Amino acid sequence: MRVRNRKGAAEHLESNAHVVVENPADFKGRWAERFGNDHPIHIEVGCGKGGFITGMAAQNPEINYIAIDMQLSVLSHALDKALEANLPNVQMMLVDGAALTEYFEDAEVSRVYLNFSDPWPKTRHEKRRLTYKSFLETYEQILPPEGQVHFKTDNRGLFEYSLASMSQYGMILEKVWLDLHADEEFAKVNVMTEYEAKFSSKGQVIYRLEAKFPKRG
Amino acid sequence: MRVRNRKGAAEHLESNAHVVVENPADFKGRWAERFGNDHPIHIEVGCGKGGFITGMAAQNPEINYIAIDMQLSVLSHALDKALEANLPNVQMMLVDGAALTEYFEDAEVSRVYLNFSDPWPKTRHEKRRLTYKSFLETYEQILPPEGQVHFKTDNRGLFEYSLASMSQYGMILEKVWLDLHADEEFAKVNVMTEYEAKFSSKGQVIYRLEAKFPKRG
Repeated sequence: MRVRNRKGAAEHLESNAHVVVENPADFKGRWAERFGNDHPIHIEVGCGKGGFITGMAAQNPEINYIAIDMQLSVLSHALDKALEANLPNVQMMLVDGAALTEYFEDAEVSRVYLNFSDPWPKTRHEKRRLTYKSFLETYEQILPPEGQVHFKTDNRGLFEYSLASMSQYGMILEKVWLDLHADEEFAKVNVMTEYEAKFSSKGQVIYRLEAKFPKRG
Repeated sequence: MRVRNRKGAAEHLESNAHVVVENPADFKGRWAERFGNDHPIHIEVGCGKGGFITGMAAQNPEINYIAIDMQLSVLSHALDKALEANLPNVQMMLVDGAALTEYFEDAEVSRVYLNFSDPWPKTRHEKRRLTYKSFLETYEQILPPEGQVHFKTDNRGLFEYSLASMSQYGMILEKVWLDLHADEEFAKVNVMTEYEAKFSSKGQVIYRLEAKFPKRG
């Protein structure tokens, strides 16, 4: 997600260190302490403006959510949403999704969400896509065996790529939606991202999948 | 595919036994003899009116094609196409796709095509879908290790189902298209079925996948 640089974003994050974790590596293996309970932890890699994670946290108080983005201005907007919602089960961190193993112990995370990730359509940028094999490897490490990734996007090329990339990595597709908003049952629980609300209102199809890693041998 | 009953269809097939194999079980393990060469054999399960298999056979003279359908009237229309094209590398059989192991030795077939298969949308008919696990098991048996299934359809529900069913079976998605006709490179070699030409001209998206079975342990 690209947003305009926001003046004072760094200070905004610093002054809300109860939500934006300053030294997330310190909590590796100790996230239950940070949250004050041992509820499952779901993370969103590339949280954008935070509408999804805040909405999910409000809907599911028994789950702890961590919103991750590497862009300062983006995360500062997400912080606004979290502060407004004032939920005990949302934390945020300004880090690179490629380095998640620095912040989470093996199997410490129960689910990974990817929403409307940057498609990086050029082949030479394939390695930056959040469903490239090196990222999948990282998710597998911080998830338990058979841990799930839930992914949605409006980008056809990225979704086509991700289906094949995940499958070739050894992940198993549990369910696939090729027009998410046509599923009336799912619509009842679907938390839309800012992008999703905007593009689906224009008639753009939204794709979604739930995939799990294999059992470990 | 549903077509009107065609008068004289059985006689039509019988009188063209050089194309429509009368006792296909007799050729199990001996298809190379029937074709008079040892070219790879590609089969289409549910060949409909035969436009695809005839087009493929014309495009690829070094491949032997076998069109399979269990409906007499449907196959008699496909026979018309084959007779008109008069190609040495097309054979047909009127049999049930569930019984393929009666007609093919292990690994005797090099590729399986499924095109615009009946979606059987009701859950209680899941077992009739040509990508249900029992069918996948049959294809795996007659294909070599890492043998491929190529599947296209305009039916969203069937495609969603098939992605998950194949993945859960252990197949690996090599490539997925969520709008086949948007791929200009593929369009150059794409042989359209009668359905495909009709529905894509109405703006219907065509889905396609290439999936392979795993290596055998």
